[in-house]
Amino acid sequence: MKTSHFPLSTTKEFPKDAEIISHQLMIKSGMIRRLASGLYTWSPLGLRVLHKVENVVREEMDKSGSLEVLMPSVIPAELWKETGRWDQFGKQLLTLKDRHENDYCLGPTHEEAITDFARQELKSYRQLPISFYQIQWKFRDEIRPRFGVMRSREFLMKDAYSFHIDAASLEAEYQNMYRTYSAIFDRLQLEYRAVLADSGAIGGDRSQEFHVLADSGEDAIVISTESTYAANIERAETHAGTKYAAPQQAFEKVATPNARTVEDVAKQLNVPIAKITKTLIVHAEDGSLIAICLRGDHSLNEVKAGNFKGIANPVVFASDAEIVEKLGVSPGSIGPVNLPIPVLFDHALYSESDFICGANENGFHYVGVNFERDLPFTGTHDFRNIEEGDISPDGQGTVKFIRGIEVGHIFQLGNKYSTAMNASVVNENGEQTIMEMGCYGIGMTRIVAAAIEQSHDEKGIIWPDVMAPFKLSLIPMNYHKSEVVKELADKLYKEFLALGVEVLLEDRDIRPGNAFNDHELIGIPHRLVIGERGLKNNELEYKGRKDAESSFIPVDSAVEFIMNQLKK
Amino acid sequence: MKTSHFPLSTTKEFPKDAEIISHQLMIKSGMIRRLASGLYTWSPLGLRVLHKVENVVREEMDKSGSLEVLMPSVIPAELWKETGRWDQFGKQLLTLKDRHENDYCLGPTHEEAITDFARQELKSYRQLPISFYQIQWKFRDEIRPRFGVMRSREFLMKDAYSFHIDAASLEAEYQNMYRTYSAIFDRLQLEYRAVLADSGAIGGDRSQEFHVLADSGEDAIVISTESTYAANIERAETHAGTKYAAPQQAFEKVATPNARTVEDVAKQLNVPIAKITKTLIVHAEDGSLIAICLRGDHSLNEVKAGNFKGIANPVVFASDAEIVEKLGVSPGSIGPVNLPIPVLFDHALYSESDFICGANENGFHYVGVNFERDLPFTGTHDFRNIEEGDISPDGQGTVKFIRGIEVGHIFQLGNKYSTAMNASVVNENGEQTIMEMGCYGIGMTRIVAAAIEQSHDEKGIIWPDVMAPFKLSLIPMNYHKSEVVKELADKLYKEFLALGVEVLLEDRDIRPGNAFNDHELIGIPHRLVIGERGLKNNELEYKGRKDAESSFIPVDSAVEFIMNQLKK
Repeated sequence: MKTSHFPLSTTKEFPKDAEIISHQLMIKSGMIRRLASGLYTWSPLGLRVLHKVENVVREEMDKSGSLEVLMPSVIPAELWKETGRWDQFGKQLLTLKDRHENDYCLGPTHEEAITDFARQELKSYRQLPISFYQIQWKFRDEIRPRFGVMRSREFLMKDAYSFHIDAASLEAEYQNMYRTYSAIFDRLQLEYRAVLADSGAIGGDRSQEFHVLADSGEDAIVISTESTYAANIERAETHAGTKYAAPQQAFEKVATPNARTVEDVAKQLNVPIAKITKTLIVHAEDGSLIAICLRGDHSLNEVKAGNFKGIANPVVFASDAEIVEKLGVSPGSIGPVNLPIPVLFDHALYSESDFICGANENGFHYVGVNFERDLPFTGTHDFRNIEEGDISPDGQGTVKFIRGIEVGHIFQLGNKYSTAMNASVVNENGEQTIMEMGCYGIGMTRIVAAAIEQSHDEKGIIWPDVMAPFKLSLIPMNYHKSEVVKELADKLYKEFLALGVEVLLEDRDIRPGNAFNDHELIGIPHRLVIGERGLKNNELEYKGRKDAESSFIPVDSAVEFIMNQLKK
Repeated sequence: MKTSHFPLSTTKEFPKDAEIISHQLMIKSGMIRRLASGLYTWSPLGLRVLHKVENVVREEMDKSGSLEVLMPSVIPAELWKETGRWDQFGKQLLTLKDRHENDYCLGPTHEEAITDFARQELKSYRQLPISFYQIQWKFRDEIRPRFGVMRSREFLMKDAYSFHIDAASLEAEYQNMYRTYSAIFDRLQLEYRAVLADSGAIGGDRSQEFHVLADSGEDAIVISTESTYAANIERAETHAGTKYAAPQQAFEKVATPNARTVEDVAKQLNVPIAKITKTLIVHAEDGSLIAICLRGDHSLNEVKAGNFKGIANPVVFASDAEIVEKLGVSPGSIGPVNLPIPVLFDHALYSESDFICGANENGFHYVGVNFERDLPFTGTHDFRNIEEGDISPDGQGTVKFIRGIEVGHIFQLGNKYSTAMNASVVNENGEQTIMEMGCYGIGMTRIVAAAIEQSHDEKGIIWPDVMAPFKLSLIPMNYHKSEVVKELADKLYKEFLALGVEVLLEDRDIRPGNAFNDHELIGIPHRLVIGERGLKNNELEYKGRKDAESSFIPVDSAVEFIMNQLKK
C-alpha cells in the first residue's frame, strides 16, 4: 500500500471522554471514528488490525476442532423467555419490536440461540461431543459506554459453545479450550494470565478468565509470587493460618467511650488495628441476623459471604437501627462474646489470641479475649478479601496484585441452559439425556485496545508484529524530487510486495518529520528510510519501533535484513 | 474434514413455506436453520459456502482499490433525519430505542453512516477519489420474509461507497466497479447479466443491476438477441419505427355499441387489436387531465409515464366519473381527435395510418384515422412496456425476455446524500465543493441462493467449484470393516489434505446409498469411491457431480486425475 492511496488520517486531537491511552491512540491514529455513543466505525487502518486478530482466533478455533457457524444478531424473545434471561438480563439487553410487534433482542451473547440450534440438530450421543463457534458483532446497551472499544456497545466476539453427554467430556473440552486460548494469546504476542473467576451472571460451575496484563486494567488480579496461580480478587481463597496460642492476658472489660470504629478503639487502647476483632451484622436468608467476625484490618468479601450457606445473597447489611433494636447495642460496640445470634469467624481469626472485641455494651470493649476460655471456638471460614503478602491460595509463595483487562472467558455452564430449553439427546441406553454445555468467549475488539494498553510509548502504538496493520514502513526522503530516491523506493516496494511483506510506502508530499510521526503513531514495527545522504554511502537507515537509535544497513542487504527481522 | 466430525445434517423434510428450490435445498442440505421468521443460522456447511463468496468479493474489491471499513449496524436516527430517509424509508426500517430513549435503526444500507464518516475524514480534493467498502450483516423488516435467504430479514451485503470531486471521476469509478463486479461474478462461475436499471428509492442518476439468470428469478429482464444489451423491463426503451404512410382510407365515424374495451371494438369491427389506438387519461402534476395514446395491444409503462415532464409521479389514473364529468364521454369511447386536453402519443403510433380510435361520443369510434389529415401530429414519446420481438433499444437485433435474480447493483448517486449531509471538500481553487458519490452493493447471502436456483438437479445442489463447501468427496465402501479400503481411504485423505484439496471423507457407519445421497445433495463437485470390488482391478470409481455415469481410474493416478479435474 502507498499512503497516497491508503488514508493515514492521524490527528492530534482526541475527545475529552477518551480517558485511557488506547482510546486516545485509536482516535489519534485514525483506527476508529465515533458514530454515536459507544458505536465506532473501524477505518481501513483499524480494520486491518482487527482482521489480524480475527484470523489468528479463527485458525486456532478451527485447529481445536470447533465448527464455525453464524447465528442471527436479532434473536426472538421467546428463546430468552425459555431461560428466564429476558427478565433477568436487565437494561444492557437492547430489545426491539418488528413491524408485527414481535419482541426481539440484539444478542449480547448467544446461549439461547445456539441451544435452540443444538436441540434441532443433535439427536444422539453419537453426535457428541461437538463444539460450535461464531465470530460476530454483539450489542450491550451500556449505561455509560466509555474507553472507546474497550467498553463499547457494539463489539466483536468470538463465542463458542460445546455440547456433551457428560461432565467428563465437558471437562476435556474445557481443557482443550484452555490450551486453545493460551495458543491464541501466545500467537497474538500478548502478556496475559489465565485467572480463576467467578462465573457471575452467565451461571455455571467452573470458569477462568484470560486477562491481558496492563497497569491501566480495570480488574485486579491476585497472582502468586512462586507459582502460576492467578485469580480474581473476588474469588481468591484465603486460608486459616496456625492455631491460636494459649491465653496470656486476663479477660477484661474496658471503657472505650464514643469509639465507633476499630480505628477509634485502636487509638484509645493504643494497640494495632489487627489486634481488634470487628463484628459485622448481615441478614440471614430468612431475614434474621447473623454476625461475621473479621480481623480489624481486613475487609469482607461480599461474594464469599453471599455464597455462604444461610446468608442472604446478595449480602444485606443490618441497619444501625435494626442492630440497636434487635441486639440492644450500637454497632461500634458489638462483639462475639455472648451475642444472642449466630456468630461466624473468618479464617484469619484462627491464629488470634488475647484479642479485643466489642462488649455488647455501649462504650465498652473486652480485651484479652480468647477462644475456648471466653467464647466457644466454632471453626473459621473464608469471608475476607485476600491481601498482598497473604499466603498464596495454592500454598506456593505469597500473593501480589496486578491489573488486567479481561479478553477471554471459558465456562463450564453445566446443564443450566440445556435443562431450561430441554436440549437433550438419546444416550447409549436409548434414554433422553440433557446435554452438558460449555461456553467460551473472546472479546476481539477489546483485544485490539488491550494490546495498545499493554504496549505503547509517548510516540504512539507499539504493535506486536502479528497485529501490526503493516509490518514495514518505507519512507523515502524527497520522493517527489529525488530521482534516485524514488527509483530505489519503488524498487524496494515492489520487492517487498513480491515477498509477501505488508509494506506501507510513504509517497505523500509531506515533511519527513510528519511522516515519521505518523508511522510511529500507528505502530508499524519496522522502518526503512531512503535518503540521498545515506545513498552516498550506499546505505539505508533502519529503526525498529522499539529501538532507541536507528542503524545503517547496506542497500544491497536491506531486503535480507528486513526478512530476518520479520522472522524473529 | 471427516463426516464423523463435520455434521452433515441433511433432511428430507422442508417447511411448507419453502416455495423455491434454493430454500428447499438449503434446508434439506442443512446449510441453514430457521431461528425465527426471516432469520437463519448458518450451519458449518452453509457458512463454508458463504465464506467462499466473501473471499472472492473481498479479493476483487481490494484489487479494485476500494478500502475495507466496518460501520456499526446500529445507526443513530439523527443521520437518517439529515437525509429525510428516517421518515421516507417506511416499515422495512427496523427502529429501536436505547436505554436513554435515543432512536436508532438497524442499518438496511449505510449511505448516511459512510457520508458521516467521509465528511469527517475527507477535507481536500487531494484525498479523492476514494472508495470504501464493508462486508456486513444488514436488516430489512420485510412484511413477509420468504424464499429462505433470498428475501430474509438479516442478510450479508458487500456495500461500497465512492467519493469524487466531479462527475467524470465518478463515472470512471463506476466503470471500475462494473469491471470489478463482472470479475466477481465471473470468478463465482455464475451465468449473469449486467442490466440497465432504474435507480429506484436510493435515488441518483445512473445504475445497473447484476442478475444471476434463473428461470425462477423474480425479475424479468430484456435482452437483445444480437448484442449484450440487457435492461429491466421498466427501463428498456422502445423506439419509433418508420414514419406513418399516406392515408388509404376515408375518415369515418362508426357505431360501436356497448364496446368498453379495445378487444370489444376489435371484435365488432373485425380488425386486429393493434389497429386500434387506445387512450388513457392520467393526472398532470397540477391535477388537470392528460391523455396518453398507445397501440391497442401495448401496455403503459408507469415508470416512463411518471418520469415524463408534466405528468404526476407516481402516475394517477383519472377515475371513470372524472372522465365522464370533464370530458363528457365514457372511458370506452375516448380518442385523440379533438380531445379538449393535451394528448401525447407513444412511439409505436409513429408508424400507424388508417387506425381506429374512440370518437369522444359514447358508442362510436373513428376508423381510417390519419395524422395530419385528421389530427395534428405532435411527435411521439416512449410510454410503453417493451415486448418480445421489439427492436432492441440499442438497434441490434430484437429483444427477448429472460428471468433473473438481482445480486448486485451499481449506482451513480450524484450529490443526493452529500448535499443533504453537507459532505464537502476543498477543491483546487480552495472552494468548498460538495462531493459526488457512487454506491455499489452485492447481496452475499443472496448469491448463495441464486447459485442454487441456477444450478441444481433432482439430487440436490450442483455447486460451481469455487463455491463448493468441499471440492472432493472420498467415499470408502465398508470403511469400518475392510482394512484395505480404510487404509487406502486414509492415505488418499492425507494426500489430498497435504495438496490443499478440501476433501470430505465419509467415515460414518452408514449405508453407501445414504452417503451418496448426502454428498450429492450438498453438491460436492467431485467424488471418488473406494471399494473392494474396484480395488481388485486396482481401480477407483470417479463421478463428477454433473456426470451421468461414473468412470474407473487406476488407483495410482487418482490423485493426479483429481488435481487435473480441479484445475479445469
